[in-house]
This record gives sequence, C-alpha cells and structure tokens, in this order.
Amino acid sequence: MSSTDWKWIQFQRWVVCMLIGIMTGLVAVVINICILELTEVKMRVVEQGKVGLLNENSCLYIPLLLWIAINISLVTVASLLTVFIAPVAAGSGIPQIKCFLNGVKIPNVVRFQTLVTKVVGVIASVSGGLAVGKEGPMIHSGSVLAAGISQGRSISLNINTRFFEHFRNDREKRDFVCAGAAAGVSAAFGAPVGGVLFSLEEAASFWNQALTWRIFFCSILSSYTLNFFMGIYHHHPGDLAYPGLINFGKFDGSYEGFELPIFLLMAVIGGLLGAAFNAINYRITVFRLTYLKARYFKVLEVVFVAAVSATIAFVLMYWNSECKPLGQDPNVKLQFFCNDGEYNTMAVLFFTPPEESVKSLFHDPLGAIRPLTIIVFVIPYFFLACWTYGLQVPSGLFIPSLLIGAAWGRVVGNCVNLLWPADEWAQDLSKYALIGAAAQLGGTVRMTISLTVILIEATGNITYSLPLMAVLLLAKWVGDYFNHGIYDMHIHLNKVPILPWEPPALSTNIQAREVMGSPVVTLRTVPLVSDICSVLSDPRNCHSGYPVTDTDGKFRGLILRTQLLILLKHKEFIERSGSGERIALSVFRDSYPRYFPLSLINVSEGEQQCHVDLRPFLNPSPYTVYEQYNQHSNTSVPQNATLPRIFRLFRALGLRHLVVLDDDYKVVGMVSRKDIWKW
Amino acid sequence: MSSTDWKWIQFQRWVVCMLIGIMTGLVAVVINICILELTEVKMRVVEQGKVGLLNENSCLYIPLLLWIAINISLVTVASLLTVFIAPVAAGSGIPQIKCFLNGVKIPNVVRFQTLVTKVVGVIASVSGGLAVGKEGPMIHSGSVLAAGISQGRSISLNINTRFFEHFRNDREKRDFVCAGAAAGVSAAFGAPVGGVLFSLEEAASFWNQALTWRIFFCSILSSYTLNFFMGIYHHHPGDLAYPGLINFGKFDGSYEGFELPIFLLMAVIGGLLGAAFNAINYRITVFRLTYLKARYFKVLEVVFVAAVSATIAFVLMYWNSECKPLGQDPNVKLQFFCNDGEYNTMAVLFFTPPEESVKSLFHDPLGAIRPLTIIVFVIPYFFLACWTYGLQVPSGLFIPSLLIGAAWGRVVGNCVNLLWPADEWAQDLSKYALIGAAAQLGGTVRMTISLTVILIEATGNITYSLPLMAVLLLAKWVGDYFNHGIYDMHIHLNKVPILPWEPPALSTNIQAREVMGSPVVTLRTVPLVSDICSVLSDPRNCHSGYPVTDTDGKFRGLILRTQLLILLKHKEFIERSGSGERIALSVFRDSYPRYFPLSLINVSEGEQQCHVDLRPFLNPSPYTVYEQYNQHSNTSVPQNATLPRIFRLFRALGLRHLVVLDDDYKVVGMVSRKDIWKW
Repeated sequence: MSSTDWKWIQFQRWVVCMLIGIMTGLVAVVINICILELTEVKMRVVEQGKVGLLNENSCLYIPLLLWIAINISLVTVASLLTVFIAPVAAGSGIPQIKCFLNGVKIPNVVRFQTLVTKVVGVIASVSGGLAVGKEGPMIHSGSVLAAGISQGRSISLNINTRFFEHFRNDREKRDFVCAGAAAGVSAAFGAPVGGVLFSLEEAASFWNQALTWRIFFCSILSSYTLNFFMGIYHHHPGDLAYPGLINFGKFDGSYEGFELPIFLLMAVIGGLLGAAFNAINYRITVFRLTYLKARYFKVLEVVFVAAVSATIAFVLMYWNSECKPLGQDPNVKLQFFCNDGEYNTMAVLFFTPPEESVKSLFHDPLGAIRPLTIIVFVIPYFFLACWTYGLQVPSGLFIPSLLIGAAWGRVVGNCVNLLWPADEWAQDLSKYALIGAAAQLGGTVRMTISLTVILIEATGNITYSLPLMAVLLLAKWVGDYFNHGIYDMHIHLNKVPILPWEPPALSTNIQAREVMGSPVVTLRTVPLVSDICSVLSDPRNCHSGYPVTDTDGKFRGLILRTQLLILLKHKEFIERSGSGERIALSVFRDSYPRYFPLSLINVSEGEQQCHVDLRPFLNPSPYTVYEQYNQHSNTSVPQNATLPRIFRLFRALGLRHLVVLDDDYKVVGMVSRKDIWKW
Repeated sequence: MSSTDWKWIQFQRWVVCMLIGIMTGLVAVVINICILELTEVKMRVVEQGKVGLLNENSCLYIPLLLWIAINISLVTVASLLTVFIAPVAAGSGIPQIKCFLNGVKIPNVVRFQTLVTKVVGVIASVSGGLAVGKEGPMIHSGSVLAAGISQGRSISLNINTRFFEHFRNDREKRDFVCAGAAAGVSAAFGAPVGGVLFSLEEAASFWNQALTWRIFFCSILSSYTLNFFMGIYHHHPGDLAYPGLINFGKFDGSYEGFELPIFLLMAVIGGLLGAAFNAINYRITVFRLTYLKARYFKVLEVVFVAAVSATIAFVLMYWNSECKPLGQDPNVKLQFFCNDGEYNTMAVLFFTPPEESVKSLFHDPLGAIRPLTIIVFVIPYFFLACWTYGLQVPSGLFIPSLLIGAAWGRVVGNCVNLLWPADEWAQDLSKYALIGAAAQLGGTVRMTISLTVILIEATGNITYSLPLMAVLLLAKWVGDYFNHGIYDMHIHLNKVPILPWEPPALSTNIQAREVMGSPVVTLRTVPLVSDICSVLSDPRNCHSGYPVTDTDGKFRGLILRTQLLILLKHKEFIERSGSGERIALSVFRDSYPRYFPLSLINVSEGEQQCHVDLRPFLNPSPYTVYEQYNQHSNTSVPQNATLPRIFRLFRALGLRHLVVLDDDYKVVGMVSRKDIWKW
C-alpha cells in the first residue's frame, strides 16, 4: 500500500467518524422528539377521558382503562418487534456491545433491523410507561449505525455504495463500533469524554492514539448534533442546554468536608440496594430463561408488566393525599385527584417522562415533595424496574436506577435536614439526591471511571468529582461482595465467553496443555475437497480457524473457516483453474460479514476428489505458543506457556484462537476464547 | 499466591496511589508558594532600588543591575543543580516520562536527587524570570514521587521501609509512575481526567480497568490536596478556586457558529507558529549538542539567557508608552516608568508570574491592553521562549506557549472587534485568547485527546469543547506537515528508541530476518562462569537478556543480564553450593533496580571454571517468533513473522526483546527495541 493510499484511507476514517457522530445525534433527536410528542398525545387523550378533572367521587375505571390501553398498545408494538424481528435488541444492548468490543461475535447485533427495532421499540416502551430509560439503547443504536456506515452498505437494505470497502473486516469494524458506542453515550448523557472512556473501558484493547482521537471527534459531534436540533425544537436555537437525552440541570451547590461520611454511608446503601436489585433480577431472568421460552409468552409478559405498571401508578396517585398548589413547580400541571389549582405530587413522579422526574428529585426545593410520597413511590418502582429489565423490549437501566437512587437520596437528605434543621448546608437536598443516584447506579452496573466521568459531565460541576468517585468506588466494592454487575450477570447468563481484565488468580501454574482443546483437526496444505467438507460439516469442529500442516506434520499456518467456505463456493480447485488464475481479494471482502453456510454450497461427486491449494490463502504466521515435553532433559523444568501468558496474548491482541505447537513444530492443540473463559 | 495475599497487595496498591496523590499535591503546594513568595521578595527588593518611583529622568542602571543580579543568582542555582547533580532534570521532563512509560530505561530519571533538582530548580528558574512554566516539571515530579513511594525505599537516602516489597519490579513500578504522572498533570492544570488520559496516551499499553481507576483516584487526590492547601494559603479555606498550578479563571461566554472559521484560521496560525517554534528550537538544540558540551558552558548559557531576558523586559517596559490609570485591573500596582496613579501595561506581561499574565490576557476587558503593546511583547518573548527550552534548567513549555498564544489570540480578537465593532459577540476577547493559546500549544506539543481534556477542565466550561478540539486537531495537522512535536523531536535528538503508535507504513513485507540482530550470543543451560563473564563484558553484546540453549542448540529460555550479575555476585555455582540451597527470590527483589556492574564483582581464577545452573532462573517461555527457511517446500510461501506483527507484540505487551527461532527451535536472531526503532 502506498503512502497516498494510506492517507486517503486515513481521511476516509475521519469522514466515517463524522458521519457516525452526526447520524447518532440525529437518531437521538428522533427518539427524544417522538417520546416527547407521544407522551403529550397520551396526556391529552387521557385528559379528555376526564382524568384531569377527576375527583374522588368520579368514576375511575374509564380513564384507568384508557390509560392502560394506550400503554399496552405501545409496549405491544415494542415487544412484537423485539420478539419477532430482532431479539438481540431487547434490553439496553450494553452487554451485547461489551461482548462485541471484547472480540466475541454475537449474531445480528449490528444489523439494520436491530437498529429499527431498537429505535421504534425504545420510543414505544418509554412512552408506554414502563420503568425503562432511553439512554442505554442509544449506545446500541450508535454502534449499529457505526457498523453500517463504516461498511458503506447495508445487506438488509440491499444497498452497496462501494464506499469504504477497505473497512470491511472485523478489526476496522470494531474500531468504528467503538466510535459509535462513544457517540451513543455522548448523546445519551451529553458526555463526550465519558463516551470515549466508556468505549475504551469496554473495548479494553490496545490504546491507539489516532483511534481515540477519532472516537472523541465522533463523540463530540454527536452531542452537538443533538444539542443543535433540540435547541431548535425547544425554540431556543443556539442554546447549549440540551447536550444529552438526559440533562441533570444546573448544580450550583457545594458540599462540606464533614458530609463525606454521610455520602459514604449512602454509597453502602447504594451498593446493598444495587446488589439486591441484581440478585432479584438474576432470579427473574433465570425464571424467564427456563419457563418463558415461547414467543407469545414473552409478548404476554411485557403486556402484563405494562398493565401492572399503569395500575400501580394509578392506585398510588389515587391514594396519595399530598396535593400542592400549582405554581410551586412552574412546569407541572398534573391535577389528578386533586382539587382545582393543585397538583398531585405522586403524578410528578409517575406521569412525567422519567428524565423529568429525576430532574424534579434533583432540583425541587426542600418541601416540594413529602418524604412519605417519595417512599411510597420508590418501593414499588424498585420492584417494577427490577421486573422490567430483561423483558423483550429495548430498555435502558440508567434512568430507573438514577430515579430510584435520587428518590432515596432525597429521603436521606430530608433526614439530614431533620437532624440539623438550622444549618445551611443541610438545606440543599440536590447533592443528596445526586449522590443517591450515583450510589444506586454504581451499585447496579458497577462501571468505574467512565461512569464517574459521565456523571461529572452530566452534572456539569467538577466540584462533585471526589465524592462521586468515592461513592461509585465504595458502592462497587459493597456490591461486588454479593454478586456481579448486572451487565456481567446477563453476559454470564447468556454464556458468552467474554474475558475479564486480569487472568484468574491462582492460575500461574496452569499450562497450555491443560487449557487447550486437543486433539485438533488439521488440514494439509493441499487437501482434498472432501476432506475440507468433512471438517467443515462436523459440528464438533465448529471453530473459526483450522491449523494447516505440511505432509510431515509441521505447522504451516492457519486458515479461517470463512476462507474455506469462499474457496469451496468459488470452486477454487487446482484441477479446475489449471492456469492458476487466482480468486481476487475483493471476493473475500465482498463476502464479509455474511458467509454462505456449507449446506448451500453444491459440490459435485467429481469435485470431491479435487484438491485445493490453501498455501496462497493461509495466514502463515499466526500467534502461537509452545508446549515442550522435554524428552531432552531429565529435570522437570516448567517449559511451557502458562495460562496468564496465554490470557494476556488473547486480551491484548484480541485473539480468537491460538495454536499450540510442540518442540518439533507439530500442532498439539488449539486454545480458543471459550477454553480460556472456562477457567 | 493465595487469594488473601492478592487482596492485601491490591489494598497496598490503593494505599500507594493515595500517598502518591497527596504527596504530589503537596509538592505542587511547595513549588507554588515558594514561587509566589520569592517573586514577592524580588519585587520588594527592586522596589527599594526605587524602580517603582522611576521616571524617565532617573538613573536606570541601579535597578536594572539589581534586577539582573537577582535573576541571575536564582537561575544559577537552578542550572548548577541541574548540570552537576541531575542533568536528567533539565527541561520539562515530559519526553523522559514518555520514554519511561513507553518501556525505555533512562538512567536516573526517577531518582531522589532528580526530584530535588526538579523542585528547587523550577522554583529558581520561574522566579528568576526565565520564559518557563512550572507545569511540565510537575509531571516529572509526580512520576519520581510515584517511583519512590511505590518502592517503599529510597536508595539515595538510604531508607528501606520494607513496605511494598512486592512492587519492586519494572512492571509494577511503571504502573505507579503512570499514576504519578497523572497526579502531576492533575495538580498542574486542575485536570484529573486530563491527567488520566495523559498517562494512558503516553503509557500507551494495555488498558487495565483497575489500574485506570487507581490512577484516577490518585489524580483527583492530588488536585484536591493542592486546592486545600492553596485555599488556606490564600485565606479562603474550603474554596474550590485553586485546583491547579494554573487556573484559567472563569469563562462565562459562548461563541456563535459563524466564528468557527475564524477559530480554524487561528488554528492554522497556531500550527505554523508552533512548527516555526519547533524548527528554531531544533536548530538551537543541535547547536547545543554540538558545541556546548562542557558543563561550565551550559551554566554560562543559562546565565546569559537570564541576563538577556531581564534586559529585554526592562527595555520594553521603558519603551512602552502605554500607561493606564490604576484600578482598571484591581490586582495590578506596577508603576514602572509611569506617572503616579498609573501602571505600565507591559509590566503586567513581563513582571507578574507568567500564569498571571495568561489570566490577564484571557480576561482583561476590551481595551485594557493595547494590541501594539501585546505585539511588542510577544515577538521577543517568542524567541526567548524558544531559546530557553532546552537550557539546563527545569522548565515547562506549557505556560510560555499559552502566553504566546493568548497574546496573539487577543490581537486577533482586537482585529475581529475592529471589523465588527457593533456586534456583541465580537466584544468578548477571552475566547480568542483561549483559542489562540490552544492553537499555539497544540502546534508546539502536538498532544491530542489529553490536551483537549486538560484545556476543557482548566477552562471549566464544556461549551468550548468542539472549537478546542477542532483547533487542536487542525493545529496538529498543520504542524505535522512541517516537523514533529517538540517532545518527540527532543526524544529523537537524544536517540531514544521509543516506538510510535503504528508500525511504519510500507513495512508489511519486511520480515523478522531483516530486522533482527544476528548472530546472537547464547548461553548454555549450565555454562561456565568464564563464559558468562566473557558474554557480560563484551560491549557488543550489551543486551538486557540472553537466550539460553540446550546442548543440542534448542532454545530453552531467556535469562536477564541482571539475573546473571546477581548469580555471579552471590556465587551461585554448582561446585560451591553443593547441597543445592538456592538463592532466595528476595535477593533478586532487593537488588532492584540498581545492580552491580560486572567490574565490581570479583571472580577468582578457580571460580572461573565453576558452572552455574541457569535452569531454575531462566524464563522458560518468553515471547518468541518464528523464521522458517522452508527447506521442505519448493514454493516461496512467505512463512515468516513480518515487522508489523513484531511491532504489535512489542507495543501491546511492552517487550524489550524477542527471540527469533527457526523451524528446529534454534535461535537465529534476536529483535530488540532498538532494532525496530531503526525502521
């Protein structure tokens, strides 16, 4: 490749990142505006059902049924799409993206229909009143966009622009998906730096300066795009108040040093509640995996949860006796069951979009909501959120966690205020709500540096960096004592071979021999077609690559399963091509990433006896490790590659398989990601 | 290692990071207060020399001489310390830390005397009126502190606490030095996240979540410690206004979309000026390396520069005819050559500490300083700064660059204001000064994401993130067209084998054979002492590790030079120990990192014929690559490890050497960092 080509490709990379950033921002705009408009419409319809004018004497069931009906129809759309079109779009998508960036292939995770399902689904499920957020799904959406844009085509849409052909391989695609995930975080929380850190924390491979820089560029553009269009939508063009889907509002206050112990106590509470959340969700998920396998069951469960959520909200609003005169909170006009000129505080928590509820809990002045109202709200909401995460709808976990945390954080703040009623520092509940939200979120998801930076950026106040960090750290420690973070838990439940940060403890004495799969099916350099077919069709050998050996058994290189499939499909047989015209590189590139299954390739009886010369195609120097049996020496010196060493190779270089050779350069085994993961 | 041990070590890591953060913050406090106090004292002395009351009729030479004398004596102290005690403390230390984190050993870079020289030197050179900053050296200071604290001892001070013994190896030490560098950045600019990114950008190896998290903790603590003590010093305890050595002050404004082209034009100017700065500095440095080798020359040059700096400052203040009535800028009382009740605007730029000048340029209202005054100031200052960087004193480059950039940025702002005098957006010069500062700094140092985040954090205003990023990116591109960043330039001039981010272009066809050093000196598994001595004493074989082979020539492992030295020193000979009592691991650990040279080890004539059993000590499975000569096949299939592959192994795993083996497991060569770097 010449230097000019390289510069051209480099330029294309920047263009792709720019497009990813802008498109991700636009998708966030669409999601945001649709949800706002749908909520508005829903409100108006229920209002016409006279809920707004209801008092305790009126007939309850009409508005309740109307309300439930709207919610159910919305979430039904979301769940039908998810169950029947793209099941991988369920949930927040963060576990899936984590796995993808870690180097694990998950089918359909970055397909076009996944994006559509994700976007439409999240609009429907948030407007449908489920206890979910729209922030997590943004990360998945950004990733899908990145994968699509960087390939310059969509196979689902049957578009092939011929742009960006160079990027049609796993490595380049993964880099762009990093950028897309960062853009998603950036648009979700208005946190460009947090987005970059999120990508790095999850992608977790070799830090490349130029790549990081592009990711950052993409990330900033995404937040700006969202901000630009939301400014126009809200009739404040040019205003910089809308950098993310959720904006925490302005935090002006500060804290005193002696409040740190209170914050740390809250971190412990957050860690415990987060661990409880995860434990309950774990049981629910196991139940789902065991009993709710049928598709219609999955849809029915979603409908049921939507109905229960709406009913609980209604019942609590009805029971809640706290009404405040209108005007205390200028944006609120929720009269439900209150007298004229008053609003129902419970409705502020249940009826407004969850982002607005979080903001209310953060910033409403002391006394705007009674602690009892908050407690009555947060307990059922906790269980609802717990039940909801894992349903077959696109759903984010950040907002429910922040809402739960902000709620109990505010209650803690009220208690502090009761204890020191005269002190000025105890008048400001917003910091307690913020710390509570951070503790709850940290206790549930257990992310570290990226979450801290995301929260600092969302708060827009560097003052809280130390307490936020301390709280997230402690909440993580407390939570880790009981169980794993919720994303890791779901990854584990799905049996994905994701690799952790460090090799497992106590593994220094485990050697390659004990980890590797053995015996390994190998191919000769010039095998028969029938040999290749039998290797490929054997389900026990479903590896993504096979070692190729010489006639005397010496290792010669590695050939990928997909390469073999293409060679078979294009009938690249020695006997056939004769003169030696070779299959072009572009054939391999165009086939990426969807290959024909073996069953669709017709190989005639005669062709079975042809030979394929693998030598021009195999990778002659893959990463290998050595396993010696020391027949030459009597001492029992440990000569072999240990698990930690293999682990670091996999982790740092993003390998999928590693061939184990012996002294004589013969293949003795192969280590796959799954083999390591089992330890 | 048991699980409890592992937890205990993990806990120690946190403690070490905490100590590093607090100590780095304290060192920043000491540097800051000393410089403030010394500047104050200097001012008062010169004031008594009647400079303050001077008008054009008075006698000039007394205060000028007094002024020069004070400056010269201060910088003499700095340069004597640097030249005679720790030459590695010269400059900002960022190139040295970059190399250290990249995996290159530089002698004395993290020694105690380097720290003392750095701290005292930077205090003296900044107070001595050189065109230098104190921010860069903070990064080096933080790193030295980290290395010292993490080892639990200082060999220079003859302290050995027996704490943290587990951390006495290169890998652990490097991790802590990362944390120290981050803490340094954090204290210098009040930018904890920027500090983490700086460390990651420079350390550039495998991203480890737990490590990053500790670095962040350390980084935040450092900024808080500085803030806490500076608050007390300034009689505002608890105020959060002093997070860094330089604080940019409060940026309230915003910008309009149509100003972006102006910013981009400024980025081009910054890139050009930065490239010019580097080009001039390159020639000066080459001149220094060629002609100024003698130590006293180096000291004399420093003295000369100090004298010239002071003279230029004085002459310009004398010539400057702009006097403003006192009170326009409430902190300024610099009457120099002005009438009573007025102050000399040039003195604001030259006489106050450079951080204050930057702040004045950022925030002084329109009209506070005439553009002509700024131009007359910035041109000589540019050349002074250029001459100063590379002198044998500790000196930072950030502040001079920011000052130059803010100066011409403000002039650009003045021009814009002239073109659109009526428009409100053109009244705010601070954004132009900020963008100019960013462009100049970016054009000089060419750092990317970490610099953006540092500037965003120092500005305290997320609004400017997009223009800052765009400007830094464009300035880097423009500058890169002409030459390298100044740190890389100095690294290159010092011939340090640092590895870039990506393998060199056009390298895909270069094979291990062409890169490797060959033939390689190998040792047998049980060699004679005399063999070892001859290998170690041969200057052509001065590698840090040697391959060990079997009697039949097969590769068995790698032994480090330092291990051989320890084995010789402790006379670990087969004939001597007999019963087989082995040298303890702690002997290796205690010797780290300073080993005896071979000349100090006495080996008697008889001992020369003894044998050493290397097998228990060698590393049996180092990373290796294979080089096949294909005697088995007639095809010329490329079977060998290529340069990009080797490069990635070195970069991702931080290797120092890689053994190249052939088909038969025999050593055919060795690739060292230097070998790769040559390409």
